[in-house]
Amino acid sequence: MADIPNCDLKSLSPLQLFEKVTEQGEKVRALKAGKAPKDEIDAAVRMLLSLKLSYKTTTGQDYQAGLPPKDHALINNGTTKEEDEDLVDPWNVQTSNAKGVDYDKLIVRFGSTKIDTDLINRIERATGQKPHRFLRRGIFFSHRDMDQILHAYENKKPFYLYTGRGPSSQAMHVGHLIPFLFTKWLQEAFDVPLVIQLTDDEKYLWKDMTTEKAYEYAKENARDIIACGFDVNKTFIFSDLDYLGSSTGFYKNIIKVQKHVTFNQVKGIFGFTDSDCIGKISFPAIQAAPSFSSSFPQIFNGKENIQCLIPCAIDQDPYFRMTRDVAPRIGYPKPALLHSVFFPALQGAQTKMSASDVNSSVFLNDTPKQIKTKINKHAFSGGRDTIEEHRKYGGNCDVDVSFMYLTFFLEDDDKLEQLKQAYTSGELLTGELKKVLIETLQPLIAAHQERRKQITDEVVKQFMTPRKLAFEF
Amino acid sequence: MADIPNCDLKSLSPLQLFEKVTEQGEKVRALKAGKAPKDEIDAAVRMLLSLKLSYKTTTGQDYQAGLPPKDHALINNGTTKEEDEDLVDPWNVQTSNAKGVDYDKLIVRFGSTKIDTDLINRIERATGQKPHRFLRRGIFFSHRDMDQILHAYENKKPFYLYTGRGPSSQAMHVGHLIPFLFTKWLQEAFDVPLVIQLTDDEKYLWKDMTTEKAYEYAKENARDIIACGFDVNKTFIFSDLDYLGSSTGFYKNIIKVQKHVTFNQVKGIFGFTDSDCIGKISFPAIQAAPSFSSSFPQIFNGKENIQCLIPCAIDQDPYFRMTRDVAPRIGYPKPALLHSVFFPALQGAQTKMSASDVNSSVFLNDTPKQIKTKINKHAFSGGRDTIEEHRKYGGNCDVDVSFMYLTFFLEDDDKLEQLKQAYTSGELLTGELKKVLIETLQPLIAAHQERRKQITDEVVKQFMTPRKLAFEF
Repeated sequence: MADIPNCDLKSLSPLQLFEKVTEQGEKVRALKAGKAPKDEIDAAVRMLLSLKLSYKTTTGQDYQAGLPPKDHALINNGTTKEEDEDLVDPWNVQTSNAKGVDYDKLIVRFGSTKIDTDLINRIERATGQKPHRFLRRGIFFSHRDMDQILHAYENKKPFYLYTGRGPSSQAMHVGHLIPFLFTKWLQEAFDVPLVIQLTDDEKYLWKDMTTEKAYEYAKENARDIIACGFDVNKTFIFSDLDYLGSSTGFYKNIIKVQKHVTFNQVKGIFGFTDSDCIGKISFPAIQAAPSFSSSFPQIFNGKENIQCLIPCAIDQDPYFRMTRDVAPRIGYPKPALLHSVFFPALQGAQTKMSASDVNSSVFLNDTPKQIKTKINKHAFSGGRDTIEEHRKYGGNCDVDVSFMYLTFFLEDDDKLEQLKQAYTSGELLTGELKKVLIETLQPLIAAHQERRKQITDEVVKQFMTPRKLAFEF
Repeated sequence: MADIPNCDLKSLSPLQLFEKVTEQGEKVRALKAGKAPKDEIDAAVRMLLSLKLSYKTTTGQDYQAGLPPKDHALINNGTTKEEDEDLVDPWNVQTSNAKGVDYDKLIVRFGSTKIDTDLINRIERATGQKPHRFLRRGIFFSHRDMDQILHAYENKKPFYLYTGRGPSSQAMHVGHLIPFLFTKWLQEAFDVPLVIQLTDDEKYLWKDMTTEKAYEYAKENARDIIACGFDVNKTFIFSDLDYLGSSTGFYKNIIKVQKHVTFNQVKGIFGFTDSDCIGKISFPAIQAAPSFSSSFPQIFNGKENIQCLIPCAIDQDPYFRMTRDVAPRIGYPKPALLHSVFFPALQGAQTKMSASDVNSSVFLNDTPKQIKTKINKHAFSGGRDTIEEHRKYGGNCDVDVSFMYLTFFLEDDDKLEQLKQAYTSGELLTGELKKVLIETLQPLIAAHQERRKQITDEVVKQFMTPRKLAFEF
């Protein structure tokens, strides 16, 4: 294939560009597989990078293999995206609003229920614990059937927690901790078993990655998750690639879900096309199955009717809408859900953080210096252009990423409120606010790294071994 | 829903009828689930049976849940079925010719290679065994890469055998034995490991059946397969529902295949539609994966490159065309194949036997009396209408089912030839030919039943336990 001049690329539609990138990617793979001369491979790789850049410039999004741009117009059961609507699905979060996604609209669109003060108070009464800051501050903002879980708990009926992660890279960033920090609080408050799914099979299917690499990432990510402080006697962490081949219950539930969901349905929910591989098409059942207690006979003693509560970011909701639709048809209780907002990128709340862009995130393996530099250099500021203007008109906390991060990580409510007032009034400057964030994150991450270091391969293996937990069923 | 008068049904298209049957089936299930009054359920069931009958009358085929009639027009990568073409896919075999499917045409259409005298002679030379009657008589008539397998064998390179069965009911019929009888001969002639897949998950997906029932059928069918005389030290029989959850290698290969096959491809090969469940759509990968030795790390010591030879009826070829297409892309050798013709129904060679119609087959649990009655009553005859005409013009072995069955089960070539000549000349009457078949099958089936009785649950369990076999890799 001859090089395509840039002027030609500009005239291509997003889909045509997508196809060009795909083609070129295949060409690079073929050259590498055929052990072509180095300079030929290098030229093809340069071409690929240039095509990817054009794709990003045209569509505003990173190229993702197998995910053509036209899908981006489809959200929510095939309805067309309106100009001002946010795009939210398991692979994309996109909004034009600097404050981030409009979550009230999302609740209406997804048909979930807002977490209100009454529900938070009920959680406090039931557990005797002060609600986690993620509840107090609306970071977990939406739910499905949480009242049912509380009713069961108040009547001494058991339930369990299920959350997960797609292990797409070795290092996790602070945003990835949100569901785990909250799940840990829930587990301690309610004292219930927890299962954590690492979808290494999903990453193998979606990315250009071997199964071995995906499994390696799963084990590395497990280490970061364990470092949040989970109790090995109450928690089972599993890689799909591993657990599917060592469980008598998991595959049976996967195939039950797969029998009760059609291609038409996953097409509507996830925007799959006829060109998608059959692995992607059937994958949603694999994320659905851990919602049913019989997927873990070793934990629940074969019981099929223990209800499940899933804390997750709201972009995962499509999987569980599907799961809740299938559950009664295969004789299982519907899982309940608690949805969180997205963690914003340093560059602003228009999109969630990405593990593939080191500057979009503060990573769990960043040094104190890296943390400082990243925040000072990249954290989008809601402050004014000059100190004089800032003092006069004040900063805007609604779009200031440093302030947003503090709502996630600063425990002290009073201090957070003081910062807000001082920044909004102009008394506190952007640099000073960033300093507070740096000083909040540095010790948190240092402590995480210290705990992580203590976790031996043996401990990771223990967490990932199917076994009975410290609960009787 | 009010009863539909029959006159209305006749005006419906096959697809409309299909939808009516599906609807009514759902109604019956809903009534049963809701514990409706018995007479209401009975009425709905009667209606369902009547609709199924209309469907069969209109389409000439039994209603199969999830398999709409329009698929029947699609064979072989989406080409449209011509008027005079045979329909052959994993779920349907249909021809208008009383002699059965035109296998020479099928070889051209499927792109496989005819098994000729040279190949049979080479098998004889390589193994030092007289070729099995199925080879001598063209019952295994087509292959892919059998010459490669022989070349490897002649050079002392190992290979293994893989065959299987969909356990759709408790009792198997004599036609189901064909691949197993031949596989047993191959295993003994070449002295190689054998894996036998029981696709209980497939039956769960395609039929109205629980996973428990499908697994029970798998174990019952395993007993009949073992009764063919397989060696437990060289043979591994597995249920998908069971083995998928107990193997470190099987799922990894399934997902590798699933990553490299698109919905477009399975739509072309198998005629799936958007209304099919995602389980069906991804199932072909599960039948593909045992073609790769790394699906059985316990047998092949983790080796990935042991070639596989698959003896099967030719209707299973679409699965393995797909497998052979994927194999090089995931770094595995392509499986080789040996294809058999179909075993005809007692009523004639237009279709293969079906386990769901007791009179279409001689079953392995039939009594000597049942065998006699079935053959005398149902076996389609190529004889003349009167004894006088028969003596004068002779019978037609090409369409006579008793004679066809004898080509499968009578070992003695000379006797078979004598019978053919005597029947064709009119010397032998239909009743006499049937008597020979009855006297051939009765002792075969009695001996099978005797061997089956000796097989304890413990032995079945042994065959179905993942373990090392008596081969070093």
